[in-house]
Amino acid sequence: MAIDFKEHIASVENFPNEGIIFRDITPILQDPELYKEATRRLAEYAKSKNADVIVGPEARGFIVGCPVATELGLGFVPARKPHKLPREVERASYDLEYGSNSLEMHKDAIKPGQRVVVCDDLLATAGTLRASKELIERLGGELVGAAFYIELPDLHGRETLPGVDIFSLVQYHGA
Amino acid sequence: MAIDFKEHIASVENFPNEGIIFRDITPILQDPELYKEATRRLAEYAKSKNADVIVGPEARGFIVGCPVATELGLGFVPARKPHKLPREVERASYDLEYGSNSLEMHKDAIKPGQRVVVCDDLLATAGTLRASKELIERLGGELVGAAFYIELPDLHGRETLPGVDIFSLVQYHGA
Repeated sequence: MAIDFKEHIASVENFPNEGIIFRDITPILQDPELYKEATRRLAEYAKSKNADVIVGPEARGFIVGCPVATELGLGFVPARKPHKLPREVERASYDLEYGSNSLEMHKDAIKPGQRVVVCDDLLATAGTLRASKELIERLGGELVGAAFYIELPDLHGRETLPGVDIFSLVQYHGA
Repeated sequence: MAIDFKEHIASVENFPNEGIIFRDITPILQDPELYKEATRRLAEYAKSKNADVIVGPEARGFIVGCPVATELGLGFVPARKPHKLPREVERASYDLEYGSNSLEMHKDAIKPGQRVVVCDDLLATAGTLRASKELIERLGGELVGAAFYIELPDLHGRETLPGVDIFSLVQYHGA
């Protein structure tokens, strides 16, 4: 299907902060054909990496990753913000523009040797992806790929993760 | 398929607060068969209500509702915590045990006349569902049903929404 996903991403200036252009995927989600096709493409990618399980970082990573998991008949593991998961967790921190944040995964979420694909809406500086990779590897899994709706190549996220295969539906330059 | 979903829900005492038993659905999500079957059952319900669109409240409602939407070929609308959605929103508040919280939806998220099913992990006092209903109706939609993995009937959430059809996979009494 010849879809230009960019036509359906809303670019909102100065959100959440002055000078930032927020790339809003909700118009894709609201459109059944577009959401299904975006899911299909990420699922095709995850299948090509022989993924055993899909990890999605809170919260838009749930929207992107969950239907990829059910489409492929795989399990889904949420990487959540601190104090949301009730059982024993691993925690990894990542840097934000100002300060830092953390992600947690349940210690039993990944089985040793499992091949993991991370799904999320946006690859920018890749802090979330690096934290996810750290958690996956501490649990004995292998990050075999990461799939995004949107990539901002000028923020060089990809280059901070040499050896990690990355797929994105669309790229915005000059972000 | 004869599945006892309760066998795969982790009950964690005193989380997030003393005296609360947290019902943790992550073991269902991690198991491909269970996540797919739970999704299939909620999708069957949403289909029986002739849903046009699925709404999921942040954040576990994304995990539950997104694959239901793609399974049925419907759009998905996130109901988010304040200041997460970048464009013009409607906001509705709901009471918590201590204090209150709010949910937002983009003003263009629902088209007038659309039939909406809300999907979430847990029906307790139904504050989130009432706020979702208010938002859906302000946008001109109709809440034709709500589907949950878990219901706590003793908290009487269902009774606060007379006329709203509610489906749940499992019920816990005495919660």
